[in-house]
Amino acid sequence: MDPGWHPANLGAGVIVSPRSTAEVADVVRVAARHGVPIVPHGGRTGLVGGGISRPGEIILSSARLNRVERLDAVERVAVVEAGVTLEALQVAAAERGLEPGIDLAARGTATIGGMTSTNAGGIMAFRNGVMRHRILGLEAVMADGSIYSDLTRVVKNAAGYDLKHLFIGAEGTLGIVTRVAIKLDPLPKATATALLGLPSIAALQAAIDLALRSDVGQLRAAEALWQGYLHLTSKALGWSEAGVDLAQPVFLLLGLSGSDTSALQAALERIFEELAEAFPDITGIIATSVAQERMLWRLREDTDIIYRAYPAAPSYDVSVPLSEIEAYVDRVTRELAAIDPGLKPFVFGHLADGNLHLVFNHAGPFAEGIAAKVEAALYHGLGQCGGSFSAEHGVGSKRIHSLVQTADPVKLASMRAIKELLDPANLFNPGKLFS
Amino acid sequence: MDPGWHPANLGAGVIVSPRSTAEVADVVRVAARHGVPIVPHGGRTGLVGGGISRPGEIILSSARLNRVERLDAVERVAVVEAGVTLEALQVAAAERGLEPGIDLAARGTATIGGMTSTNAGGIMAFRNGVMRHRILGLEAVMADGSIYSDLTRVVKNAAGYDLKHLFIGAEGTLGIVTRVAIKLDPLPKATATALLGLPSIAALQAAIDLALRSDVGQLRAAEALWQGYLHLTSKALGWSEAGVDLAQPVFLLLGLSGSDTSALQAALERIFEELAEAFPDITGIIATSVAQERMLWRLREDTDIIYRAYPAAPSYDVSVPLSEIEAYVDRVTRELAAIDPGLKPFVFGHLADGNLHLVFNHAGPFAEGIAAKVEAALYHGLGQCGGSFSAEHGVGSKRIHSLVQTADPVKLASMRAIKELLDPANLFNPGKLFS
Ligand SMILES: Cc1cc2nc3c(=O)[nH]c(=O)nc-3n(C[C@H](O)[C@H](O)[C@H](O)COP(=O)(O)OP(=O)(O)OC[C@H]3O[C@@H](n4cnc5c(N)ncnc54)[C@H](O)[C@@H]3O)c2cc1C
Ligand SMILES: Cc1cc2nc3c(=O)[nH]c(=O)nc-3n(C[C@H](O)[C@H](O)[C@H](O)COP(=O)(O)OP(=O)(O)OC[C@H]3O[C@@H](n4cnc5c(N)ncnc54)[C@H](O)[C@@H]3O)c2cc1C
Repeated sequence: MDPGWHPANLGAGVIVSPRSTAEVADVVRVAARHGVPIVPHGGRTGLVGGGISRPGEIILSSARLNRVERLDAVERVAVVEAGVTLEALQVAAAERGLEPGIDLAARGTATIGGMTSTNAGGIMAFRNGVMRHRILGLEAVMADGSIYSDLTRVVKNAAGYDLKHLFIGAEGTLGIVTRVAIKLDPLPKATATALLGLPSIAALQAAIDLALRSDVGQLRAAEALWQGYLHLTSKALGWSEAGVDLAQPVFLLLGLSGSDTSALQAALERIFEELAEAFPDITGIIATSVAQERMLWRLREDTDIIYRAYPAAPSYDVSVPLSEIEAYVDRVTRELAAIDPGLKPFVFGHLADGNLHLVFNHAGPFAEGIAAKVEAALYHGLGQCGGSFSAEHGVGSKRIHSLVQTADPVKLASMRAIKELLDPANLFNPGKLFS
Repeated sequence: MDPGWHPANLGAGVIVSPRSTAEVADVVRVAARHGVPIVPHGGRTGLVGGGISRPGEIILSSARLNRVERLDAVERVAVVEAGVTLEALQVAAAERGLEPGIDLAARGTATIGGMTSTNAGGIMAFRNGVMRHRILGLEAVMADGSIYSDLTRVVKNAAGYDLKHLFIGAEGTLGIVTRVAIKLDPLPKATATALLGLPSIAALQAAIDLALRSDVGQLRAAEALWQGYLHLTSKALGWSEAGVDLAQPVFLLLGLSGSDTSALQAALERIFEELAEAFPDITGIIATSVAQERMLWRLREDTDIIYRAYPAAPSYDVSVPLSEIEAYVDRVTRELAAIDPGLKPFVFGHLADGNLHLVFNHAGPFAEGIAAKVEAALYHGLGQCGGSFSAEHGVGSKRIHSLVQTADPVKLASMRAIKELLDPANLFNPGKLFS
């Protein structure tokens, strides 16, 4: 059995795969009676050790909760069991001309239950929000075996506290998510994609602003790739294009969606030309075939290339308000160089929502002293400036110390009180989110 | 002083209007020490008696917390104090070419803090979500006087439980909201508006579907008006247009936004023509001036006309999944006629998100027996079919019995436990949400 992203995921050695919510509730009651902790598993693509399990615990896998139960084109809502993969939902929705409005590279394996539990983000969050903003209803099994049942299929519901938001992003520590009602959007008939080489972050942001205000189509993706990252992936994939000058410091994968491919391509060209008036040095290409579009996406999405070069490389996932990104990247670059001039992060991310991923040119974890310094550089003042040390991957077991170091103490105390209230025996995913 | 929507709002007779979060915390601590309950007030436009206060309580008004503290065009985020009105935020955002992406008729008076606390919805929720989906960060004073401080300005934040969602929609029962960071969108350069007369709900939904998939512009509003409602408002406002046949059973106010008015008007025309192929009997007009566009909106938004005709008329606010609306309206119409054939609701609402408002042709509240029957008709099976008995107005003091009757018992018990946890002395807004 594949342990997934973290080698220690299967440490418990025992997996149960219930077929229904009632069976999940049975498992929870039996485990509670015997004091056996439960580690929920979806697709095991989580990047922060939220699925690590140890002997004496049991893994509760959603693998058999894999039905798309309802998918209504009039409603534009799907109701799915927790173990349905994002891709399975995307395929089912596409048959009705719809899409879930959230997308990420692990789509083939990541499950809706796992994405709910990590409040996953991905490439369309600037426009559609993160999982939290797509979920209309939710069912979960609580620590006493009771079932929280709120499978609302409407966006408006002001009937009391909306407690499903406790389970969303709880990383399996408050309940087992069994079903989700999720909002769908019309699937665009056409997309167009450009890769631009740009002189600065200011140019990146100007490009995004132009694309957001485009007359034709809608901005669908704005993925930034810093030079080091594109150099690595383009070399590994044997890619180069005369139109894109790899000497430029930053690159932007810009996607529009709409109803007519050539109109969208023309819109991308207009964005390019308008941008070139302010930033004459830019270069870029617009994909003219589906194969070329896919290739541009692989340059961004094939992050495995880093991990093949630097196995288990240290990685970070921060959110920075758009107005602060330039100053943030400047400062972090300086401070990292001061720690060790050889330390170079591969930087890429979902720029339109301020989400940067940094993976280091270093095999295996940093020595403790270095890790602390790197985290100090990355996280310093981030909360105060309105960002987050964990944008979309969560806390899991990997970032608990950072949560403790940086979170508002009132928030932290309230989190503990709510965990204590809803899972007093610490049955669900112990050692995650809280130490 | 204006009591606002509910005559009993000012019953306490004592109002404090702190000027800062620190002053709010002081008030809370003093009130807690003396066991004096606090009723938070924003613009007092709430429709469910959430602001009702009694002697022995104090009203905490956000009137002096009225600063737009930050509004950044690059970030597309505003940070405002709770007492800022929606319109003040709209005006400030428009100066930077932005808008809050949420809109409602009470915009001149309703505050961001009040809208946060009721999780307000309005006319763009099908596209932009409700308040919950627009709020990035939040600050609130808790019952012990401590300050929950999470003024994140990014959409992605996976750093532990997202507890701001407890305060959003809590109607002042869990804390005093003092500041909110709210997402903004580019303000469209142009809008176009049509009023269509349609033969059926199926035609309404087909029109919305066509508009959602329009090549040009984006759907901005899809407000349905049933015949009785349009007859009332059009008569009161002295409006008629040859193009719109008032004999039709339902009407749709359809708004598109984009960059070019005449292109949008042409798109509305195409929608009309395509719709006419399936439903040949439709009629309709497209507004050709700003004045005409405003007039069409008044026909929908001037709900005061009902209350002038039927003071304190009983009103309801339900959410119905789009696939169920036709069956729902049929059934409810039949069951209401069975209760009393003279009972006629004026029906209108935000149709693209399944939100219907029903206000009855009856001055003052129903007799208790009738009210129970009407509620049984309106709420029967609504939760099971994925809807909600309170779409966007909340529970307040008016709908507590309906919450108790219809909510999932596990949800209800969890709500009580969380109230007990965060406000053990029942300091905040007692008698609201819970009896
Ligand atoms: C190549 C790659 C690209 C990625 N890109 C993105 C990206 O763009 N954006 C992003 O946000 N993430 C991304 N991720 C991270 C990962 O895909 C997400 O965190 C995803 O949500 C995990 O889903 P999963 O089903 O694999 O969950 P798992 O890894 O199995 O579990 C994740 C967490 O949720 C809990 N959990 C799982 N299922 C349930 C359940 N039913 N009930 C309760 N708790 C449960 C687990 O206990 C664990 O704490 C990426 C990962 C990879 C490998
Ligand atoms: C003409 C009209 C049209 C409307 N249209 C819509 C619509 O389309 N969509 C919609 O959702 N609503 C609508 N409403 C209802 C109303 O405008 C909303 O409920 C709005 O959110 C209330 O804001 P307010 O500032 O007036 O809050 P108030 O009425 O003052 O308070 C509402 C509730 O929130 C609490 N509260 C207020 N401020 C705070 C605070 N700072 N901290 C904690 N609790 C607080 C109060 O205790 C109360 O429970 C409409 C109302 C009118 C009169």
